[in-house]
Amino acid sequence: MSPAIDFYFDFSSPYGYLGSHRIEPLAAKYGRAVNWRPILLGAAFKLTGSRPLTEQPIRQDYFLRDFPRSARFYGIPYKHPTVFPVSTVAACRAYYAVVDRGKAVTLAKALYKAFFVDDINISEAENVIRVAAGAGCDVRAALGDQAVKDKTKAEVDAAIAKGVFGSPYVIADGEPFWGVDRFDQLEKWLATGGF
Amino acid sequence: MSPAIDFYFDFSSPYGYLGSHRIEPLAAKYGRAVNWRPILLGAAFKLTGSRPLTEQPIRQDYFLRDFPRSARFYGIPYKHPTVFPVSTVAACRAYYAVVDRGKAVTLAKALYKAFFVDDINISEAENVIRVAAGAGCDVRAALGDQAVKDKTKAEVDAAIAKGVFGSPYVIADGEPFWGVDRFDQLEKWLATGGF
Repeated sequence: MSPAIDFYFDFSSPYGYLGSHRIEPLAAKYGRAVNWRPILLGAAFKLTGSRPLTEQPIRQDYFLRDFPRSARFYGIPYKHPTVFPVSTVAACRAYYAVVDRGKAVTLAKALYKAFFVDDINISEAENVIRVAAGAGCDVRAALGDQAVKDKTKAEVDAAIAKGVFGSPYVIADGEPFWGVDRFDQLEKWLATGGF
Repeated sequence: MSPAIDFYFDFSSPYGYLGSHRIEPLAAKYGRAVNWRPILLGAAFKLTGSRPLTEQPIRQDYFLRDFPRSARFYGIPYKHPTVFPVSTVAACRAYYAVVDRGKAVTLAKALYKAFFVDDINISEAENVIRVAAGAGCDVRAALGDQAVKDKTKAEVDAAIAKGVFGSPYVIADGEPFWGVDRFDQLEKWLATGGF
């Protein structure tokens, strides 16, 4: 088995959500496993000077059109969240609380579906706890656990140290690919070993 | 013949350059002509608060890797310019000076090739004049012409008024597509009439 590829994403990122639907079939086609690594994009934005896409003058109208159009293009269900963007600290901590228990990817998918299909505000801890319960994970106690907070911060810091500044962001064999619109190049890279 | 599509680009934009190689075959496949409309991205950046890609902390390393990789992916020659980014005011004015004379697209392609293949600094008026001469256009007098300056500013202002904020940026039947990595969605749009 070739090395796993790293899939970085923010739970509030529409393109990260679209990527979450596409990364596993793509990786599996080339015999790769996927490390799902949620991050907090706000922490990266502090360093790059960037802002959420829908808070950028002029550009915001474009993105509000491109999010659902890209979802239709890929055939992925999408309902733009009523409250957007949101803090994903609770969602991220829930993920890292269970990351060693085998259900973390199931939880990640459930959180993305809650936010981008069912319009559940995943910035609220109670909603995260409920979605996690539906995915078979009890995270109520973990969300306030200092060790979970530390683990989450360490994961986000490690991602930023690797140059991750957007969502989705994939690193395969050291090569970085930013955006679900780079999955075509990612696929060619996996198929050919680099180009 | 269906309506022409508008292809907006900045002469200093690597992705605009890549788009310039792809837009005409794509449009022709669906019976569309292309209006080439160079803009000055700096004017749009003043409104959106954005900056050149290689002047953004952390992100710049990624883009310097992605520019040539994207060129290889599409099979387009690319040599990252020694001086980058540059002002494209002279190049843009040269284009609009000859836009009604039938050689403007030839000139646009020559300017892009000069900058992204031959490493000629097209921010310098003398270089623009020389490249234009090679494309059969005499623009020496026109570059200082107030009417040409006014025409260029009017074109850039009109683009910004239509929401253009990046390069390349295509508008087809009112639908906007930002980035050479949206040409797949542009193609599906042209093929299906919208999705």
